[in-house]
Amino acid sequence: MPVVVQNIQRADQTVIDGLAAAGVATVHEAQGRIGCFQSYMRPIYSGARIAGSAVTISAAPGDNWMIHVAIEQLQEGDVLVMAPTSPCDNGYFGDLLATSAMARGCRGLITETGVRDVRDLTEMGFPVWSKAISAQGTVKETLGSVNVPIAIAGQIVSPGDIVVADDDGVCVVKREDADAALAAAQKREAAEEAKRKRLAAGELGLDIYDMRPRLEAKGLKYI
Amino acid sequence: MPVVVQNIQRADQTVIDGLAAAGVATVHEAQGRIGCFQSYMRPIYSGARIAGSAVTISAAPGDNWMIHVAIEQLQEGDVLVMAPTSPCDNGYFGDLLATSAMARGCRGLITETGVRDVRDLTEMGFPVWSKAISAQGTVKETLGSVNVPIAIAGQIVSPGDIVVADDDGVCVVKREDADAALAAAQKREAAEEAKRKRLAAGELGLDIYDMRPRLEAKGLKYI
Amino acid sequence: MPVVVQNIQRADQTVIDGLAAAGVATVHEAQGRIGCFQSYMRPIYSGARIAGSAVTISAAPGDNWMIHVAIEQLQEGDVLVMAPTSPCDNGYFGDLLATSAMARGCRGLITETGVRDVRDLTEMGFPVWSKAISAQGTVKETLGSVNVPIAIAGQIVSPGDIVVADDDGVCVVKREDADAALAAAQKREAAEEAKRKRLAAGELGLDIYDMRPRLEAKGLKYI
Amino acid sequence: MPVVVQNIQRADQTVIDGLAAAGVATVHEAQGRIGCFQSYMRPIYSGARIAGSAVTISAAPGDNWMIHVAIEQLQEGDVLVMAPTSPCDNGYFGDLLATSAMARGCRGLITETGVRDVRDLTEMGFPVWSKAISAQGTVKETLGSVNVPIAIAGQIVSPGDIVVADDDGVCVVKREDADAALAAAQKREAAEEAKRKRLAAGELGLDIYDMRPRLEAKGLKYI
Amino acid sequence: MPVVVQNIQRADQTVIDGLAAAGVATVHEAQGRIGCFQSYMRPIYSGARIAGSAVTISAAPGDNWMIHVAIEQLQEGDVLVMAPTSPCDNGYFGDLLATSAMARGCRGLITETGVRDVRDLTEMGFPVWSKAISAQGTVKETLGSVNVPIAIAGQIVSPGDIVVADDDGVCVVKREDADAALAAAQKREAAEEAKRKRLAAGELGLDIYDMRPRLEAKGLKYI
Amino acid sequence: MPVVVQNIQRADQTVIDGLAAAGVATVHEAQGRIGCFQSYMRPIYSGARIAGSAVTISAAPGDNWMIHVAIEQLQEGDVLVMAPTSPCDNGYFGDLLATSAMARGCRGLITETGVRDVRDLTEMGFPVWSKAISAQGTVKETLGSVNVPIAIAGQIVSPGDIVVADDDGVCVVKREDADAALAAAQKREAAEEAKRKRLAAGELGLDIYDMRPRLEAKGLKYI
Repeated sequence: MPVVVQNIQRADQTVIDGLAAAGVATVHEAQGRIGCFQSYMRPIYSGARIAGSAVTISAAPGDNWMIHVAIEQLQEGDVLVMAPTSPCDNGYFGDLLATSAMARGCRGLITETGVRDVRDLTEMGFPVWSKAISAQGTVKETLGSVNVPIAIAGQIVSPGDIVVADDDGVCVVKREDADAALAAAQKREAAEEAKRKRLAAGELGLDIYDMRPRLEAKGLKYI
Repeated sequence: MPVVVQNIQRADQTVIDGLAAAGVATVHEAQGRIGCFQSYMRPIYSGARIAGSAVTISAAPGDNWMIHVAIEQLQEGDVLVMAPTSPCDNGYFGDLLATSAMARGCRGLITETGVRDVRDLTEMGFPVWSKAISAQGTVKETLGSVNVPIAIAGQIVSPGDIVVADDDGVCVVKREDADAALAAAQKREAAEEAKRKRLAAGELGLDIYDMRPRLEAKGLKYI
Repeated sequence: MPVVVQNIQRADQTVIDGLAAAGVATVHEAQGRIGCFQSYMRPIYSGARIAGSAVTISAAPGDNWMIHVAIEQLQEGDVLVMAPTSPCDNGYFGDLLATSAMARGCRGLITETGVRDVRDLTEMGFPVWSKAISAQGTVKETLGSVNVPIAIAGQIVSPGDIVVADDDGVCVVKREDADAALAAAQKREAAEEAKRKRLAAGELGLDIYDMRPRLEAKGLKYI
Repeated sequence: MPVVVQNIQRADQTVIDGLAAAGVATVHEAQGRIGCFQSYMRPIYSGARIAGSAVTISAAPGDNWMIHVAIEQLQEGDVLVMAPTSPCDNGYFGDLLATSAMARGCRGLITETGVRDVRDLTEMGFPVWSKAISAQGTVKETLGSVNVPIAIAGQIVSPGDIVVADDDGVCVVKREDADAALAAAQKREAAEEAKRKRLAAGELGLDIYDMRPRLEAKGLKYI
Repeated sequence: MPVVVQNIQRADQTVIDGLAAAGVATVHEAQGRIGCFQSYMRPIYSGARIAGSAVTISAAPGDNWMIHVAIEQLQEGDVLVMAPTSPCDNGYFGDLLATSAMARGCRGLITETGVRDVRDLTEMGFPVWSKAISAQGTVKETLGSVNVPIAIAGQIVSPGDIVVADDDGVCVVKREDADAALAAAQKREAAEEAKRKRLAAGELGLDIYDMRPRLEAKGLKYI
Repeated sequence: MPVVVQNIQRADQTVIDGLAAAGVATVHEAQGRIGCFQSYMRPIYSGARIAGSAVTISAAPGDNWMIHVAIEQLQEGDVLVMAPTSPCDNGYFGDLLATSAMARGCRGLITETGVRDVRDLTEMGFPVWSKAISAQGTVKETLGSVNVPIAIAGQIVSPGDIVVADDDGVCVVKREDADAALAAAQKREAAEEAKRKRLAAGELGLDIYDMRPRLEAKGLKYI
């Protein structure tokens, strides 16, 4: 049954911004190596790093009608997150929809479909992570849903969850885990800084992490 | 039977240039959402936008001999369009062939194979859309055909058809449909400009396109 | 049985540098069209061109422990070459490991897995050719081997073999073939220069390479 | 945080058996064209048709430890449903685990990984739907979770949801929708029987479903 | 523009039956190694071997409406051949449509989409070659075309062309080439029979085809 | 440089037969979870279980000439193992070549290409494991090598290594490891038999393998 859930809860924007600053790889590690989207989700241009509350879309193959519906649900700082009900690489989204989404404060789109007008989107600075780039158009005939939990790229995203995206891909943080994830990410970053200096000075991870005894115990032979 | 068709008809160059300016996504929509190549056809560098009359090549797997034959058939403004007779990602084309093709006025290559010397091609400004990038070389042992209809990336391309290519991928326009496609593309662009302004001002597509009654009639529920 | 082979032979560094300068496509042709990795091995950024002696890693799926072990085996000018024992696109390698590898003189990483922190790696100028980009982390639980022959992307790489990598992909040169490969590559480059000028002047490959009689003998028809 | 949820709710076994009898295609249509797994999930042998309550497993790549944990949670009539945290085609499951699962009343396994011992499994009559068949073994080093919601093959499966599987693939029915889905499926089957007779007699779907006016209204031309 | 072409030409049924008897591999070789569909087109069950005149369908992604339209155009001995306008693995076709097609004398379906109800289709003896098996349903909202040339699995099929299909896949024979293809196929079969006997007796292909001098001339070394 | 190595060493035939009897999954585990081919290597029919000494072939894409050369090198009990120098799914091998190979005592073919005439091969009882099934023919123009080490499906196979193949796929055993692998495989089979009985009686792997303390130590929570 196609539905639009209108009032979703969102995490604190300061926390969301903190997660964006930490980046996908750090956030993913910080929350226990979970939440990564599959690696076929790639940015249309390099260098963007965003986070936002997910406004989710479940759409029929070859049909982008529900994006229009979803845009009305956007609030400042949100990110559109879309999965097709069966695999489809059509270009569901282009510069006109991006113009509309940006006018509503949307920070980007993450879609397990194709996207088009990528040169325009790049010039507009509207970042998209997608499974494909394709000019193939879509129709507006079949309903889908907005703000329901979706399976996308191997992860479950519920409306209001935080999606973090950068050049390494995309990661989801459950809304209720956002504070803990940020704290862990910041702690991790601090710890990495110290290690980076030691590694740059030529110290080995084998020694810094004291790996040699465990390697030997497991049976590694040097010849 | 391997053949080379020497005299093919071409569309008017002004029309072809107009299609290039409109771009793949617009042309594809303007002619009724047809003609898009599959999304695995990607440019070797960003920013190129071309159109040209197709000089087609059907080549054996791992064999680039017919490219030499096809180059002789090129006229100013043409584009080479190649499909292998079975899937092959070898690097059929590199900087030497590009030098030769450019000397004949060729605007680019669209190939459902691999390509190589991509750094040189980028520096030369010779755009290529391909299925793969690969240094793997080819032989010159088996005949193919030039200027016969080919199936490439899910589309049929006949010699003299117009191929349009940019960052969104590739689209084919049948030669006889070129004038109508350009007219429709230009009309579409004008209409989009007005919509873009309204969307940028925060108006919703739901209202601009009057979608609400139809969404309700189809059964969409807001909760 | 997991092993680390500590003393491997390397080719002469001058020869290795010469192969880097020649580039993947030329080296591959020069040694008889062999050694190319499959085309899914792509650089994380454009423009890098390297060669180095392979320090090889065979790693378990989702486990990057052996990279730490391998880094200790690196010498100035080496390249890490890693294959998982079954397909895995996890991000095995990031900016901390790159810091450590660079401190040991490593020129780059070639891995049939995923890689992460690609923005940092790009800023650091540490080039990676990988099958995927993924923030998905790994564990350190299962042993693998360092400096054993590995099958990677369709090729066999033995420790001390030379890997050449650039925008066209990756090619391996057997250590014992390095001198001959370089000589052939340089000869080939000289020959290409002359051909490039003739092609740029509008001469056809059909004539330069005297292909017409053989095409006719094979039965090509012009119509 | 790795957890095992021990007490899950299950749908009524009679309803589950009814869904098995209806089959995947009918159940999928009956509940509104939702719930289908992606098409790469294939049975290891033809002819099996099952349904059961999902006992879910989230497992690390290359690590099948949690299957042992999950088997303890099985009740008569359950089905194991497993997804790796990142793509992995290793053979996580073979005849020994099947022996153990069958002893607990398990009806089958649905896994987005590889499976092995397929000849033995076939002889035992233990059906498996998997993404791959592979003899590649796994380790037991990293924890995962049992009976948490998982994303698998494009769908969300929560513990206790009903999975239906046959030669057409796999479909999930939310536990709370099971009764309605069965009722709709049985109604649909009855309706299809009548249509089948008319179609077999040579009547056209165009007439039975009264499609001609709508085709004409949409603009279909007969030439 | 969506069209249905109603009167198509067909090859002689005796010739078509002869091509079916020869099989895909022989027909493909006999007509000069052309016409093979890509290898992802697989039969839903083993052992079927058919040929027929193609009634072609171009369908929107996720929309099987035009199959109903196409069935009306079927004549005894025809085969339905369908390609989606963009990649889609949905189950476009099941047992009801097969019942209808069989009632019109249809010999099978060849579709670059998914198919469902494969157990029923197998029991009915209605053969299908498809890209996928999927229970995922489709809608009936968007027009396509019937009996226009289509690109499918790397080949062009025009209405009335002969498609030959068996366990090796699918091959298309242009209608105007049917007689020649059959003659060449039958000649080839006769020649193969003699060779088979010599090979079975232990003679080598190296000698039967007199390959040794050419191998030596090309430079093959025995060591 | 294309070569044919004529005199290769082979393992003891009794050992090879023992490995065939143990099967792929057991042999793979017995030798330390190594040697498995990637999972896209599938048998053309179910139920075959073979092992043999590898006669290896490195072949150009779309060119099966070297199979004729390799057949001359076959001895009773050998298996042909072929990899293309770049990915190619053409049907390199069919019933005539199988007739010839069988006449030389060949037990089967393992090829990272396509194969054809699969119905005939099935009737002849000549097993093939391949990456694809395709009727697409090949040429005989380009040399390759016979009995050189090859990289195939993620593994290195040297001439005379033992390849084991069954419904689970393919595994390679280094010739020098054959005796040890067989001993370990037979020991493993004996151990499994005892475990199978306990599992069939309802005992849990958790208890048989004493996993509970380690699961708890790693932090698994039951809720």
